[in-house]
Amino acid sequence: MSTLSVSETAALLRSFDNILILTHIRPDGDTVGCAAALCAGLRALGKTAYTLPNHGLTRSTAPYIQLYDAPEDFVPEKIVTTDIASLSLLPDNAAAYQERIDLAIDHHPSFEKFGRDYLLRPEAAACGEVIYDVLAALGSITPEMALPLYVAVSTDTGCFQYTNTTAQTHRVAAALIETGIDFHAVNKIFFRTKSRKRMALEGDMLAHMKFYDQGRVVILTVPLSLMARVGADESDAEDVSSLGGQIEGTDCAITMRELQPNVWKLSVRTGSRINATQVCALLGGGGHASAAGCTIEAPLEESKRLILDAVAQVTPDFEH
Amino acid sequence: MSTLSVSETAALLRSFDNILILTHIRPDGDTVGCAAALCAGLRALGKTAYTLPNHGLTRSTAPYIQLYDAPEDFVPEKIVTTDIASLSLLPDNAAAYQERIDLAIDHHPSFEKFGRDYLLRPEAAACGEVIYDVLAALGSITPEMALPLYVAVSTDTGCFQYTNTTAQTHRVAAALIETGIDFHAVNKIFFRTKSRKRMALEGDMLAHMKFYDQGRVVILTVPLSLMARVGADESDAEDVSSLGGQIEGTDCAITMRELQPNVWKLSVRTGSRINATQVCALLGGGGHASAAGCTIEAPLEESKRLILDAVAQVTPDFEH
Repeated sequence: MSTLSVSETAALLRSFDNILILTHIRPDGDTVGCAAALCAGLRALGKTAYTLPNHGLTRSTAPYIQLYDAPEDFVPEKIVTTDIASLSLLPDNAAAYQERIDLAIDHHPSFEKFGRDYLLRPEAAACGEVIYDVLAALGSITPEMALPLYVAVSTDTGCFQYTNTTAQTHRVAAALIETGIDFHAVNKIFFRTKSRKRMALEGDMLAHMKFYDQGRVVILTVPLSLMARVGADESDAEDVSSLGGQIEGTDCAITMRELQPNVWKLSVRTGSRINATQVCALLGGGGHASAAGCTIEAPLEESKRLILDAVAQVTPDFEH
Repeated sequence: MSTLSVSETAALLRSFDNILILTHIRPDGDTVGCAAALCAGLRALGKTAYTLPNHGLTRSTAPYIQLYDAPEDFVPEKIVTTDIASLSLLPDNAAAYQERIDLAIDHHPSFEKFGRDYLLRPEAAACGEVIYDVLAALGSITPEMALPLYVAVSTDTGCFQYTNTTAQTHRVAAALIETGIDFHAVNKIFFRTKSRKRMALEGDMLAHMKFYDQGRVVILTVPLSLMARVGADESDAEDVSSLGGQIEGTDCAITMRELQPNVWKLSVRTGSRINATQVCALLGGGGHASAAGCTIEAPLEESKRLILDAVAQVTPDFEH
């Protein structure tokens, strides 16, 4: 097993044929965009290449991405993974390939160094930036490669807003845009469109948000009754916990989602004043200093009291 | 009067001293960011330069931008404008300089060609892109110039989401980021933070939105009672009409804001199926094909009926 440079990776890919590209479970725009772009790039070299169908793909994951799903009878010679940090993130239908991965291309600092060879660039905001460099080393970037790469790079950086964004992210975006792709349509669908049910969910959450600790702590709730009333499903509720973090003046946003009657999944997002892991550890949960979670089984008001008590306990200047 | 290239503009600025820079009324991040960056650039050349204080600046317009407000006794020799398309957009306190503008730098296609000389780049998404080129021609871009320019470019493009964004926008962003500025803080405050009152406004608007025409037309309302209940002011309500345009499946978002009791200001945003100007013209208003406005004096339900009738009248496939 060895770590490769971009040019070594390109040389290795030139030597491959009959390639199958794997994406990770709960696929996002980065893993799917990278796989699609790499597949298009390998085909442009005259190779036979497919992506393994990913059954976790939803309507919201990959609009605008041309997929290259392998037919059932495809017998791959070489296996490549994109944006997969750990073998535990392989989908079920990839289990057969787990021991024979020839090349892993990733950007996660936590990458578990699997595969015969790998290219790791932990400073890249998106794996899409790494695939861009590989494809540029292999030849010219066509719109067919650029569009999924734009999806990869823009979705992994929240359209250039997240703190992982770098100058290189923008440089890659500029090069992709220059191929003439309709990146405006991607921006519209991924960043400026929400489902009617999602809008209704957010509306209710904001209409009922409650503030504590002099307005620095906010609690938003998504009870089962709300999900039922607006007819929302899992995809409408995806990442609702990011909403509270946008409220000016708060540094602790708690989102409580009712999974079963009186069973609440809590997501706690904090600034530097409050350690979210310490808060959630008091209730049997865990996570990172600025984002952690736990589960509470109790009626809503009691659940709120329990989480507020936990916040107060680890926050010296909490004002009751 | 003559139109200048970037290098001619740089040469002209080198010949200037005691410079006053003007920004437009209802200032935005682009005009203020450009003025601040240009002022910093001129000072880096050893010149005396100030910006004219802009009384329209609000808390939300220019956090993170270092201002260079001219003292009362400053007597300028040269007057420069940034991001001003028309003399009618000069603030009141700039009236004295209206006839003696030496240089106008702008990016609006509608620029009215005023000033002794001007640099116009209508293809630029933000005037910040133009100022970037001018400053690069004058010397090296310091963080003091780069931060306000990042504000200019990112705010004028909705953080690289609006359709005016180009490859060049991203290239400029990359160069600005490379100076080491804290652009993450800018992203957070401008694009990922909303006031508590704004959140409450949006929550109520979404909780009470109504759909018509098989879900393709949505009406959101901001009655005076709502503004009063959440204690919102003008700045909290700024651009609320953009919310409706993000709802999946709709192609006509109508935002009704009550300015005085039973006096509603309507903002109509449409896709290609419905002409917003035609709709609003029926009610005495106007605008563009995809964004127009009008005012209706009537109680809420009657006002809704009037605007829906107008939409139906110009939309052959409207479903009642």
